[in-house]
Amino acid sequence: MKKIKQLGLIGCGMMGGSFALALKRAGMVERVVGYSKSPNSTEKAKQLGVIDDAAASILQAAMGSDLILIAVPVSAFAEIFRSLQFGLAKGALVLDVGSTKQNVMAAATKTFGVLPPNFVPSHPIAGKERAGIEEAEADLYVGKRVILTPTHETRPEALELAKEIWQAVGMTASTMTAEAHDSVFAAVSHFPHLLAFAYMNGLGAQQDATQFLQMAGPGFRDFTRIAASDPAIWTDILMANRSEILKQSLALRTSLAQMEKAMQNEQFAPLKHLIESASLVRGSWTMNKTIPLDDV
Amino acid sequence: MKKIKQLGLIGCGMMGGSFALALKRAGMVERVVGYSKSPNSTEKAKQLGVIDDAAASILQAAMGSDLILIAVPVSAFAEIFRSLQFGLAKGALVLDVGSTKQNVMAAATKTFGVLPPNFVPSHPIAGKERAGIEEAEADLYVGKRVILTPTHETRPEALELAKEIWQAVGMTASTMTAEAHDSVFAAVSHFPHLLAFAYMNGLGAQQDATQFLQMAGPGFRDFTRIAASDPAIWTDILMANRSEILKQSLALRTSLAQMEKAMQNEQFAPLKHLIESASLVRGSWTMNKTIPLDDV
Repeated sequence: MKKIKQLGLIGCGMMGGSFALALKRAGMVERVVGYSKSPNSTEKAKQLGVIDDAAASILQAAMGSDLILIAVPVSAFAEIFRSLQFGLAKGALVLDVGSTKQNVMAAATKTFGVLPPNFVPSHPIAGKERAGIEEAEADLYVGKRVILTPTHETRPEALELAKEIWQAVGMTASTMTAEAHDSVFAAVSHFPHLLAFAYMNGLGAQQDATQFLQMAGPGFRDFTRIAASDPAIWTDILMANRSEILKQSLALRTSLAQMEKAMQNEQFAPLKHLIESASLVRGSWTMNKTIPLDDV
Repeated sequence: MKKIKQLGLIGCGMMGGSFALALKRAGMVERVVGYSKSPNSTEKAKQLGVIDDAAASILQAAMGSDLILIAVPVSAFAEIFRSLQFGLAKGALVLDVGSTKQNVMAAATKTFGVLPPNFVPSHPIAGKERAGIEEAEADLYVGKRVILTPTHETRPEALELAKEIWQAVGMTASTMTAEAHDSVFAAVSHFPHLLAFAYMNGLGAQQDATQFLQMAGPGFRDFTRIAASDPAIWTDILMANRSEILKQSLALRTSLAQMEKAMQNEQFAPLKHLIESASLVRGSWTMNKTIPLDDV
């Protein structure tokens, strides 16, 4: 892989900042120009050595960059694409970190008429609860997986380069369709977030909430960790992928009702059977057990 | 605290075994006699040095013991109490590790006519997903909290000794009523388990479940950790405390419906507000932030 001459970083937060740091550490980029809606973030990013120069506009960050990373909440993508329309260097590769893919690709298609051939929609499965450039770390992506959702409109060279770049920051790349992506992540990520938020609110609304929280232990800690996630990011994700997420919610309601019924009717054997099936599935699961090399 | 001459361990599993190991390590017990429904467990417990002698019956484990620990699934307590009725040494202290307290105390009261004055109902907030004597470890209880739920029938000296014993294995003891205990733990432990089981089953029932599970990441890992818990133990807990747990389920359904409505109606601001409130509560929570010294 050829060294990137200039990375145009659109969005100087935890995700984008970590990408810039990782690419710098790998010695794969000469210069990083960052744009952020808040001048405060851009200023901090410069102080922290995440970016070399602050751009005053999206267009300025894009101009002269051979790689653009869009690392903003998914609802802001439409505006970014409109700004990129006339500022992209010829052949510049565009990547993003959006957790939903169909809406991001629809926004790009709406602006450009087609899905830009050098845009490789990407979802790095990495992150943490705390947002902001101060939380950026070069190790964030190491050992994790990134999902790419190219279409037949995507240039094969762009896809190849995208894979090499994500590998350079430490990730294993695999591809799937945007539809499959959104359905998979609704099931294993977006809906668990919705459920954790709803559980916290259901608890917080009760009169004895303070006493409840004082007594909560390690099970609660792990179960609710994702409920502390960034509200702006997650409002966008839940909204963008709502039809798939609502399907998952229906599956949960059905499965919860089944267990409640066994409890109400004091049916030990059926209840135990349901717990056994859950425990078996979870007990035999291991993260990253199978990393598909290509389409799944 | 005076050294325990003989600990009668009823139930040689992960919880009971860890207690015996911890008490031995603290040099607070001379001899441990263990009973287990499965002779296999008792045999292993002896091989592992968790118990010194195997008892052939509950009665035999109780006879001559100045401390009895009941460490079996809560549905088995009634049978244990019936066996203890004529075998308890005068003044012997009885402790348990049951995760629900009202039903355990009701079972004791049913057998003995009153709550035995030397029985101090206890719930150590410690554990792990894997069950069995091989999983016993002397450190299990260290730095964790134990809740005691005595009544006015409990002998003050028994309560005092119970606190000293739990402290000797590394725990911080606090007391509350059995009613408050069951309501608190329904909210922060039992219901999250039910929800995690139901989520796993809802996921597992879908056609693409295998593909979903392959892509699941760290958020899923933590959210579902408790879904791998022991089915026998958790069938008992969910059944024993079902009225409180079903109340929590209702709270979740209400709160989930509120978020779903905002998603369906594309109301960004209300959805964001709900996520913010969840994120704020969880973000400001720290485990063991306040350890009440006594009644809460």
